[in-house]
Amino acid sequence: MVDHTVKAFDADIGQLRGLISQMGGLAEDAIAQAILALQRPDPVLARKVDANDKSIDAIEREVERLAVRIIALRAPMAVDLREVVAAMKIASVVERIGDYAKNIARRVPMIEGAEGGGHRIEPISILPSMAAMASGMVRQALDAFAARDPDAAVRVVESDKALDDFYDSIFRTLVTYMVENPRTISQVAHLLFVAKNLERIGDHATNVAEMVYFAASGSQMADHHRGGTLSQSAEEQR
Amino acid sequence: MVDHTVKAFDADIGQLRGLISQMGGLAEDAIAQAILALQRPDPVLARKVDANDKSIDAIEREVERLAVRIIALRAPMAVDLREVVAAMKIASVVERIGDYAKNIARRVPMIEGAEGGGHRIEPISILPSMAAMASGMVRQALDAFAARDPDAAVRVVESDKALDDFYDSIFRTLVTYMVENPRTISQVAHLLFVAKNLERIGDHATNVAEMVYFAASGSQMADHHRGGTLSQSAEEQR
Repeated sequence: MVDHTVKAFDADIGQLRGLISQMGGLAEDAIAQAILALQRPDPVLARKVDANDKSIDAIEREVERLAVRIIALRAPMAVDLREVVAAMKIASVVERIGDYAKNIARRVPMIEGAEGGGHRIEPISILPSMAAMASGMVRQALDAFAARDPDAAVRVVESDKALDDFYDSIFRTLVTYMVENPRTISQVAHLLFVAKNLERIGDHATNVAEMVYFAASGSQMADHHRGGTLSQSAEEQR
Repeated sequence: MVDHTVKAFDADIGQLRGLISQMGGLAEDAIAQAILALQRPDPVLARKVDANDKSIDAIEREVERLAVRIIALRAPMAVDLREVVAAMKIASVVERIGDYAKNIARRVPMIEGAEGGGHRIEPISILPSMAAMASGMVRQALDAFAARDPDAAVRVVESDKALDDFYDSIFRTLVTYMVENPRTISQVAHLLFVAKNLERIGDHATNVAEMVYFAASGSQMADHHRGGTLSQSAEEQR
């Protein structure tokens, strides 16, 4: 591309990357607010998280429109074209992270108040730590994306093992609680799904990190950075 | 595009669409085999489904490579460019459907044999009907894609409500079973996830149908075709 076109393309890519960072921030907020809504419990906040998900979806559509426009107007080649395609894919993954946070928020009414506002379900208190871990991975993956930093991307993938182990531990705790408190089985089943959603958020952050690594280095991340089988917690391997 | 380029583009698009149909067939097989492995139970078949998922992933990467090549070589504009982008997005959704089938297969060892090969868990028998429904939606969505048929796409979306209702019913059945058979709670928790995976497969088939509708008609599908809140079963709305 001639010089002014290179500048125009760089500006377009900058805009694309800015939208993705914006989506990422909203997705992280959604995770934190959904878990807070679960803990308090706070059905009003939960409904807010649910409604806010539309903003994340809207930005994803904006990324797609802009990406198509860049392709049509600038005819990017090779590395530049792959960068535009990668941006579309990453935006799609971040949108799914937002959906998992929304799904957590939608379970709040099924868990809080089922006992008539009295007795709380203890295991709820173990979920915020897992949520912070998953949300941290999203933040780090998006920071790696913004900085085009493959080493930071590797660190995200390496931390997925700890999150999967945490999920296994929570799964066992929730099952034990259900056996000992059969009247809470229906509610605790929803907590199983909340924990699963957090584990999937971590998988998606790992997915973003792998795309960042590939875009920055030109090759796939080596398998030894992944703790176990990709996207599979040990509980589900046993 | 000049005439020979139009022919070349049409051939490329045909190849892209053929790959997606191929992926779709493999994904439908994976769903059927995963549920069969669960029913029998058959851990060898389950491992085969797990291993075969790599084929689906490989075709998705092929779709992406081909799409990028088409964009670079043919410089498609407007409708043609959107068709290439849509193909990439649909391939990505079909790849996720394959992942859900793989995830079902991975749970087979956690459910079968936990009782030492004796007593079977009754509610397993309600899952094949739900699996057939979900798999049918995938087939119809991909047929609609192949035929560029917006009416067929609408029918897929309209059938998602029935699948969500089925999920709600299975959720309640499984919870009741856990209360009455507390020694099976750990295994039945996995069946909850299997049912959830099938419900999500239906959501993804709906997602493909909506993309087909948009590509074929130029506008978003009307909301009244969706039974309830999109991607949200009634159980999760109560």
